[in-house]
Amino acid sequence: MVQELLESPFTVQKVWTTQQKWLKTFPKAPIELIDEQHLAKASHLSTANEILAIAQMAEHKNPPRPAVGSFILALDGIRDPGNMGTIIRMADWFGVDRIVASPDSADIYNPKVVQSTMGSIFRTSVYYAPLEAYLANNPLTVYGALLSGEPLGSFPISVPVKEGIIVIGNESKGIRQEILPFVTQAVKIPAFGKAESLNAAMATAVLLGHFKIPSFQK
Amino acid sequence: MVQELLESPFTVQKVWTTQQKWLKTFPKAPIELIDEQHLAKASHLSTANEILAIAQMAEHKNPPRPAVGSFILALDGIRDPGNMGTIIRMADWFGVDRIVASPDSADIYNPKVVQSTMGSIFRTSVYYAPLEAYLANNPLTVYGALLSGEPLGSFPISVPVKEGIIVIGNESKGIRQEILPFVTQAVKIPAFGKAESLNAAMATAVLLGHFKIPSFQK
Repeated sequence: MVQELLESPFTVQKVWTTQQKWLKTFPKAPIELIDEQHLAKASHLSTANEILAIAQMAEHKNPPRPAVGSFILALDGIRDPGNMGTIIRMADWFGVDRIVASPDSADIYNPKVVQSTMGSIFRTSVYYAPLEAYLANNPLTVYGALLSGEPLGSFPISVPVKEGIIVIGNESKGIRQEILPFVTQAVKIPAFGKAESLNAAMATAVLLGHFKIPSFQK
Repeated sequence: MVQELLESPFTVQKVWTTQQKWLKTFPKAPIELIDEQHLAKASHLSTANEILAIAQMAEHKNPPRPAVGSFILALDGIRDPGNMGTIIRMADWFGVDRIVASPDSADIYNPKVVQSTMGSIFRTSVYYAPLEAYLANNPLTVYGALLSGEPLGSFPISVPVKEGIIVIGNESKGIRQEILPFVTQAVKIPAFGKAESLNAAMATAVLLGHFKIPSFQK
């Protein structure tokens, strides 16, 4: 993750490590040796790693307006840091252009979010903005994951889907009432068994897979 | 979850609750009132719920042999309880017939596994068995998620796929060398961005979605 951070646009202020080898790996970084005791004190992990970087937080306000050709994830109150991090990692995997999260969503700099993105946080554009204003007057199809939606596979899509906004709702309450008027295509993940729900990150995985990976059906 | 447990084949020994109302909801259950202090002491949660059930653990050995028409998930060393629970929940959603996990996989009765299945643990058949023996001489296609696999969408499948075994590997090491000879169709999830990997539960979500949900391509 430190390597990916150093390769990212983030401004790295300092890198501390207990291992000589990293000084050679990152010759241009502001890197210094530190003893294990001090690293353990600075780390959020119960077992500290051997390297730690300090970088400036980026600004995450004022997302670019949705434009033709953008593929965007809109998160309406994703509160669990693990889900948030996992969703950022998947967005990076599937080449999502940007994530716009409602202001009540988990903070991107929550240590558990940072950790669970596995470095994707440094490559993914995440913004916080009220979704009502963001979704108003936009030129894209707005897909919303809803229990009352049309099952995936029952409406035509052009795979890989190149543009659109997918709205993922809160873990227990789903998409807020105020956001529903902006959803132009309600979708649901068809169930084949008896589970009552999928968690938000899993639903995102299935949706992104469905929209991005073509099917070669016999 | 207590309701789903009571409706399952598990033998429930006792249900304790702090709330009178549950006595009426479950009139046939061996249910008794308890005070909050005692419930908090018995609960694994930092904030105890208002109801707690004690049930007999089931046997999870000797999975039925893979047979034509079965759709099976084989887990090769899934160690993280959160991943294990999430995979069980998804298996329940997608109607997977059974899960066969290698003996070094997370224990199904780990509290975090139980919790994260959200009740699916009571409906899903999970077995522990050495995968080498389980996969030997079986009549099904064995799909293995591998970085060297064929991208989803580049080989023909009949959606929803009704039979087969999907092998999911360990979170950091993937599928063990000893298991590879049993994989008859190596598959990979195509990447569209720059993330280096997807976590095991997310990969399972994408695979199950791809195999079970038809695509209606323009």
